[in-house]
Amino acid sequence: MSLSSLALAEFQASVGASYVITDRSAVSEYERATFATNQKIPSVILPASRQEVQECVRIANRHKLTIYPISRGRNWGLGSRVPVHDGCCVLDLKRMNQIIAFDEDNAVLTVEPGVTFQQAADFLAERKSQLYLTTIGGPPDASLLANALERGDGVGPLGDRAKYCTGLEVVLPNGECIHTGLEAFENSFSGKLAQFGLGPAIEGLFFQSNLGIVTQISIWLARKPRHFQLVMFAARNEAEVTAATKELRELQQLGVLCDTAYSLWNVYRFLTAQIRYPWDAVGGKVAPPRELLNHLPSAWKGVEWVGFVGIYSPSRAHAKASRRMVRRALRGKVSKLIIIDALMAKLGKLLARPLQKLTGVDVRKMLDNAYFHSVFLGHPTKLETGSIYWRKRGATPPDCNPDRDRSGLHWVCPALPFEGAHIVCVTRTVEEIAIRHGLEPMCMFFNMNQWYLKSFIVIMFDQEVPEEATAASKCHDEIVTTLDRMGYSMIRLGIQSMHLAAPSEQTYINVIRSLKQTLDPNDILSPGRYDFRHKWNGSA
Amino acid sequence: MSLSSLALAEFQASVGASYVITDRSAVSEYERATFATNQKIPSVILPASRQEVQECVRIANRHKLTIYPISRGRNWGLGSRVPVHDGCCVLDLKRMNQIIAFDEDNAVLTVEPGVTFQQAADFLAERKSQLYLTTIGGPPDASLLANALERGDGVGPLGDRAKYCTGLEVVLPNGECIHTGLEAFENSFSGKLAQFGLGPAIEGLFFQSNLGIVTQISIWLARKPRHFQLVMFAARNEAEVTAATKELRELQQLGVLCDTAYSLWNVYRFLTAQIRYPWDAVGGKVAPPRELLNHLPSAWKGVEWVGFVGIYSPSRAHAKASRRMVRRALRGKVSKLIIIDALMAKLGKLLARPLQKLTGVDVRKMLDNAYFHSVFLGHPTKLETGSIYWRKRGATPPDCNPDRDRSGLHWVCPALPFEGAHIVCVTRTVEEIAIRHGLEPMCMFFNMNQWYLKSFIVIMFDQEVPEEATAASKCHDEIVTTLDRMGYSMIRLGIQSMHLAAPSEQTYINVIRSLKQTLDPNDILSPGRYDFRHKWNGSA
Repeated sequence: MSLSSLALAEFQASVGASYVITDRSAVSEYERATFATNQKIPSVILPASRQEVQECVRIANRHKLTIYPISRGRNWGLGSRVPVHDGCCVLDLKRMNQIIAFDEDNAVLTVEPGVTFQQAADFLAERKSQLYLTTIGGPPDASLLANALERGDGVGPLGDRAKYCTGLEVVLPNGECIHTGLEAFENSFSGKLAQFGLGPAIEGLFFQSNLGIVTQISIWLARKPRHFQLVMFAARNEAEVTAATKELRELQQLGVLCDTAYSLWNVYRFLTAQIRYPWDAVGGKVAPPRELLNHLPSAWKGVEWVGFVGIYSPSRAHAKASRRMVRRALRGKVSKLIIIDALMAKLGKLLARPLQKLTGVDVRKMLDNAYFHSVFLGHPTKLETGSIYWRKRGATPPDCNPDRDRSGLHWVCPALPFEGAHIVCVTRTVEEIAIRHGLEPMCMFFNMNQWYLKSFIVIMFDQEVPEEATAASKCHDEIVTTLDRMGYSMIRLGIQSMHLAAPSEQTYINVIRSLKQTLDPNDILSPGRYDFRHKWNGSA
Repeated sequence: MSLSSLALAEFQASVGASYVITDRSAVSEYERATFATNQKIPSVILPASRQEVQECVRIANRHKLTIYPISRGRNWGLGSRVPVHDGCCVLDLKRMNQIIAFDEDNAVLTVEPGVTFQQAADFLAERKSQLYLTTIGGPPDASLLANALERGDGVGPLGDRAKYCTGLEVVLPNGECIHTGLEAFENSFSGKLAQFGLGPAIEGLFFQSNLGIVTQISIWLARKPRHFQLVMFAARNEAEVTAATKELRELQQLGVLCDTAYSLWNVYRFLTAQIRYPWDAVGGKVAPPRELLNHLPSAWKGVEWVGFVGIYSPSRAHAKASRRMVRRALRGKVSKLIIIDALMAKLGKLLARPLQKLTGVDVRKMLDNAYFHSVFLGHPTKLETGSIYWRKRGATPPDCNPDRDRSGLHWVCPALPFEGAHIVCVTRTVEEIAIRHGLEPMCMFFNMNQWYLKSFIVIMFDQEVPEEATAASKCHDEIVTTLDRMGYSMIRLGIQSMHLAAPSEQTYINVIRSLKQTLDPNDILSPGRYDFRHKWNGSA
C-alpha cells in the first residue's frame, strides 16, 4: 500500500516537500495508540493553512485517496492519531496553531486546529484577561478545536463546549470552504456571537463526523467567578450516592449549581488518582482489584464514590447563600462533606503538614489541584494523564505520552439520566465486567446539565503485557455492548468502538449514509468515522 | 390550479373525507395573513397522526404535489398559515394536539405540533407542577413545537427554546420517519434528556427548514424560581442605554442574570403596549409618529427606551444579593430604576389606586402583567397580541385574530452584539425608515445569551387602508435589506422576506441546495421556505 508517485508529488507541491512524511519509522509513530492497532498509514501530510487543506482535499479526490485529519492527536483512549480504516493518509493540522482572534468584551476566542489548551490558557494569562477557558482533565497539549468537535467537555461554566462554539470554517470533502451560522454572511456583526444562523443549522453535521475538515472555530469564554468554592463529599453506599445526586440535581434546577461542575468518581478511579499501582505491596504481581482498596488513605476506607462540585458565585453574599444551601442539602446524606473556600484553602495550606499526618492525604498538593490551580478554574493539568501510567512499572515520565510509552488506555463514554439509581447501575455493571477481566473498574460521572450525566469509563492496562492488553480489549468491548444494550447509549466513540455502537433506527442510518454520499461522493474523508457504515447494508 | 381527483381521493382515503378541505371559502381563510398575499392553496388536509402525515407525504411524492405543513398557524407578522409559494396544499397539523409524555422529575414535556402554550401551561398547573414552560409574548394558542422549530423564544430561563429540545420525531420528504439524538436508539434511557446523540448532529437540519415535518418534540422545562424579582428601568438617551447594557451584560457574564430575561423596548413599542392609537386626540387622521409620544403617561415623557429584567433566585439570600448588585450597577446610570419583589408587588396592589393617580399608570394591571401573572414566569398573555390592533379603529375583540380582522403586522428579526452602540444604531435606523413611511418605529431587544441580542422590529398598520399596507410593505423590505447590509443579519424570516435575506457565501448556499435535493428529490415539501433558492442560480 503506497501512494502513487504522482499523488505524492502533488502533495509535496502543495504543502512543501518537507511536510510530506513518508519515512516508515516517522510514519509508524502515527500508527500507535493506547491500545493495539493494525491500520497502516501511507504518509503524513502537514498543511499550514486552510488553502493547503483545500488543495490536499482536491488531490485526494483526483487520486481517490482517503485522508484522515487530526488536530493534535491527543485522543488518548479513543484512538490517538490512528485512522479508523487502514490505508488513510493522515492530515496532521498541528502547524495551523494560530489564535486568530480574541475579543475580551464579547468573550470569544477564535482558533485553528493546532491551538492547545495550554496555549490558550497562557494567552489569556498573558493578557490578564477576566475570562478563562474551561479546560479538560486530559493533556494540556490537546487541541481545543478537536475537543469541541468530538463533543468533549471542560469542567465548570461553558463546559459542554459543543454548545458554546460558533462560526466554524469548514473545508468540505469537495474542497470548497464554508462558514457556518452568521459567519456565512460576509459582514455580519454577530458571526462569532450568535448560536444559530438563518435557516437549517448545518454546523452539527461537522461534530463527531467525517463530513468536513474544520479549520477554524470560535469558542465562547467564561468570566472568572468572583468567588469559587469546591465541595467534596464521599458516599459509602448506594443510598448515599442516590440521595446526594437527587439533592444536587434539584440545586442545579434551581440555579445554585451550574452545568458541567459536578464530577463523581467511583472509588477505583479515586484510588488511581491518589497512588500508582502498589507493585511492591502486592509482590510484583497483579492483585485482584478489590484488594487494592486496602491502599486507600485510611480516611477514605469504605468509601464507594467521591464527588466534587464547583460553586461559582458573583459575590460573597451569593457564595455564602449557595454554600448554606449545598450544606443543608447534603448534610446527613453523605459521609464526608468538605466545602473549601478561599479562606479555608489558605488556612489549609498553612496547616498542610499536620493535616497530612492526620488524614494521610497530601493536603498541599490536593489544595493546589482542587483549589488554587484547579481544573475547575480552567487550569490545564497533567494530573489525570499521569494517572494513565497506573499499571506501568517504573517512574511516570514528566512528558507523558502513553502512545509512545505503551501505557494502555480505553475510554467508554455513555450517557445516563441524572439519577442515583442509574449511577449505581452503571457502576455495578462496569465493576462486574472489569473485575472479571482482572482490571480495575473506573467510572466517572459528570453533569452535562440538569437533565443528564456523561460517564467516562476508563480501562487502564500495560500494553507491554499481552494478556492484559487482550483482557482490556475484551473488557472494553463487553462494557460498550452491555451498557448500550441496557439503554446507556454511547455518546462518543473511539476507533476501536466505531463498529460496536450505532443508532438502532435504520431510517436514521439511511440519512447519515445519504448525507455522506452527497457531501463526499468519492468517500475520501475519514471513512468509517461516525458514519455507521457497518450498518449501511441493513438499509432498504 | 386544482388537485387531480385521483390525488384528492388518495388524501381522502388517508385522512378521511371530512379532513380534506377543498371548499373555496374555507380554504381562503388559510390564504390570509397579517399582510397581503397572493398565494393560492388548492386544499387543506388535516392528518391526525404521524402515520397519516407519512401517507400524505407519499401521496405528494407520487403526484408531484407540493405540501406545506403548519402547526397552529399563529406565525403572525411572518406569514400566518400562508405557504411561501403558490399552489401548495396546506397540511394543518392542529388535530395532532396530544401531550405525549411528561416527566416531573426530569423536567421534560413531549408534545405534538398542535399543542399550544396555553394547553401546556394549563396541563402543568393542573398537576401542580414545580416546573413551568417559558412562554412567548405571542398568542397563547400558538404551537409550542412550531415556536421551537422557528427558533422562537420564551421569556426567562430556557427561553432560547431551540437549545432546550430533544428527540425530534421527523417525517422525511420521502415518507420515512426518524428520531433524532439518542431517540434513534430504541432503548436509550436518555433519548429525551441528552442534547446530542452519537455522530453528526442532524436535528439542526429541521429547524427553520423544509427538510422534514416534525411530528413530536421533547421540550425541557424550567424549575419555578423560589424568588422572582422584576427590574424596570428607563433610559432617556443613548448614553444611558449604552451604560445600562454594558452593566447588564457584565452581570450576566457573572451569572447574576440569565439568558432571555432582559427585554428592552424603544419608546414607540412601549407606547403601543400602553394605549391604542389616539384617533380622537389626533382628529381621526394619522399623525406624524413623533407627535404620538405626547400621549405617553406623564411619568414616561422623554424616555427613549424601557428595560425589563427578570431576576430568578433560589433563596431569599440570593435574591437580596442579586438585587443589591443590580441596583449598584444601574443606579445613577439610568433614569428610573424600579425593582419589584413579592412584598413590593403585594403592597403595590394594595396602593394601586393612589399610585395610579400619581403616575398615570394602571398599577394594578401593570403589576398583574409584570409580576403576578408575568410572562417572565411562564404565564401566556394576550396582551401583546392585543396591541397588534394598534392602528385599527374600534374595540379590540377578545379573541384576537389579526388574519381575520385584517390588522396589519410585519415582523423583522435581526441579531446584534450585546452592546449599547448597536442597540442605538438599530433603533435609529428603524426610526428613520419607519417614520419616513409614516409608521411608528417599534423595536424590542432581547438577550439570547451574554453574547448577542435578538431584535424584534414590529410594523403595525391597518390592512384595510391600502396606502398604509403599501407603505408598511415597503418599510418592511427597506428595514430588512438595510439592516442586513449593515451587518445586522436576519435570524428569522417570514414568507414576505424569504427572498430578501440569505447567507452571502455561495458555497454555503450550495450545501443547503444539495441537502434539499438529497432529502427531497421531488421538491414536495414547503418549497422556498428557508432554502434560499433565489440564490441557487448563483452556484457554480
